[in-house]
Amino acid sequence: MRITYEELQETFTRVLIKLSFSEERATLCANIFAANSRDGVYSHGLNRFPVFVEYVKEGLVIPDAEPIQVSENGVTQVWDGHLAPGMYTATIAMQKAIELAGANGIGCVSVRNTNHWMRGGTYGWQAADAGCIGICASNTIAIMPPWGGADPKLGNNPLIIAVPRTRGHLVLDMAMSQFSYGKMQEYELSNKPLPVDGGYDTQGNLSRDPVAIKTSKRSLPIGFWKGSGLSFMLDILLTSLSGGRSTPVITAGGKEFGLSQFFLCIQPAHLDEGLIEEIVKYTQSSTPVEQGKSVRYPGQSTLNTRIDNLKNGIPVNEAIWQTVLQMQ
Amino acid sequence: MRITYEELQETFTRVLIKLSFSEERATLCANIFAANSRDGVYSHGLNRFPVFVEYVKEGLVIPDAEPIQVSENGVTQVWDGHLAPGMYTATIAMQKAIELAGANGIGCVSVRNTNHWMRGGTYGWQAADAGCIGICASNTIAIMPPWGGADPKLGNNPLIIAVPRTRGHLVLDMAMSQFSYGKMQEYELSNKPLPVDGGYDTQGNLSRDPVAIKTSKRSLPIGFWKGSGLSFMLDILLTSLSGGRSTPVITAGGKEFGLSQFFLCIQPAHLDEGLIEEIVKYTQSSTPVEQGKSVRYPGQSTLNTRIDNLKNGIPVNEAIWQTVLQMQ
Repeated sequence: MRITYEELQETFTRVLIKLSFSEERATLCANIFAANSRDGVYSHGLNRFPVFVEYVKEGLVIPDAEPIQVSENGVTQVWDGHLAPGMYTATIAMQKAIELAGANGIGCVSVRNTNHWMRGGTYGWQAADAGCIGICASNTIAIMPPWGGADPKLGNNPLIIAVPRTRGHLVLDMAMSQFSYGKMQEYELSNKPLPVDGGYDTQGNLSRDPVAIKTSKRSLPIGFWKGSGLSFMLDILLTSLSGGRSTPVITAGGKEFGLSQFFLCIQPAHLDEGLIEEIVKYTQSSTPVEQGKSVRYPGQSTLNTRIDNLKNGIPVNEAIWQTVLQMQ
Repeated sequence: MRITYEELQETFTRVLIKLSFSEERATLCANIFAANSRDGVYSHGLNRFPVFVEYVKEGLVIPDAEPIQVSENGVTQVWDGHLAPGMYTATIAMQKAIELAGANGIGCVSVRNTNHWMRGGTYGWQAADAGCIGICASNTIAIMPPWGGADPKLGNNPLIIAVPRTRGHLVLDMAMSQFSYGKMQEYELSNKPLPVDGGYDTQGNLSRDPVAIKTSKRSLPIGFWKGSGLSFMLDILLTSLSGGRSTPVITAGGKEFGLSQFFLCIQPAHLDEGLIEEIVKYTQSSTPVEQGKSVRYPGQSTLNTRIDNLKNGIPVNEAIWQTVLQMQ
């Protein structure tokens, strides 16, 4: 089943207004949920919406809370999100970073006590739309073991790097696990093995079986010890910059709220689209491993999916869509 | 065979002075080569020194060239390394970033036409020693295929994140391939398989055989498509910031010189060592997979190796050490 962007967006808005969101804030959050589904990131679009509503009802996301600046040091700022909706605070924080970069070449905004931003790429696109390089990251609840360990102590801690480009921004939106639990569930539901090893089974063997990995709780960081180190350092970085809650503290709380994030913007004074195209073309000139397929750059699929979904409607999971319709 | 840090350092200095390095510059470069071996990064310490000397003799590294500032935008600067020794320029660039951060909370220095910085972690430690968070990256010659491609089009593009800590800085120094060719050679020479898949054989199967991977030239990015995307984006980022040479351009030149790098420093206004220790302890509380071993944090092994090598002498490859001794 496919529905229009407008139908998705308007439905989300109505549900949020019913939850006592202001019209402005409901629209902003609904736009982001609808855009995530539009861009093919269904896990953080429609499919995530009922969880968000649940968090609002539990008081973990506070619809009318206002993020406040805590401190300022030169062109860096620290904000407290006061548990406002994560997408709202992230949008404000990246906007501040864009303004700081406009005036100073670079700007950095760190945020404590914020909430899940849904798709981190949203704020990369925001920076790139403003002609800026955008880098941002968030910590999360612990979902995978560190290298050498058997039980989850590290977050999925997404890292986003975005560079503006006339022919479609280059946006990398990358979490630290090889497969999220959401992605593994997709394979499980369609009875398919993962395309590469995604973790260990309970016997300690590398495995492509999503059920075996879910049972052992030993999902793999990207690049084994390397992604383990990067996830760890991102949590250290976010906590040091914001003074906010770390993955251990978030995990102890049991629910994924009150996160730490940072938003960096840089004016690319020497950005040359010719140089960028050269890198894109060169990378894509690698002989395809599978005939008929080509090498893609980060952001390319997003743009293709967006065009297709705007033209033909956005695919929705019918059960979830019915649930959301009944929330109005 | 083990030798003292002083013997290594003094020998390097004498060789560099003979190559017309000023005493000051020879000392700085010799310190970095010796410190890399001291910290256990032999591949970019003694073992790399003869290649560096070769590059100097070929005119690709210019001993007395002076890096010059090209432009300034607020608290961001762009420099041209003019092919000066990479370690010298990287040290200056990180120092500038530290100064900018001291005055403005953050500082970003991008560099074009610089040279191999040897171990990127060196500049992370430099920032952390100054009480700053340091982030830096470099592009390289193409050494691995992008995801979906069969021939090398992506650099190893190391990324460094360093956070200061009284009990030993936390420093992640991570290249984008699962194993460097240097690391694969170590396994080949000791007739051992890689501990995890490092690439594909010529039949297109994932492989732990370093020789098979060297033959196919299909080494693996960390996390498959994820590290492929991150390597690509780092090259885009470095080229956009510095206006310098990209991996395609460097690779077309045939030799790894004239690189693009960036150095970012942030004053961590809210850094709380208690919060950091909590993350370290929590991560290390994961049940060890192998009995008697424990989970390590980035920078921990470096520090242990440093202490051991300073006490007992630095292990050197005798053949390479003899070669360097004869260069004096």
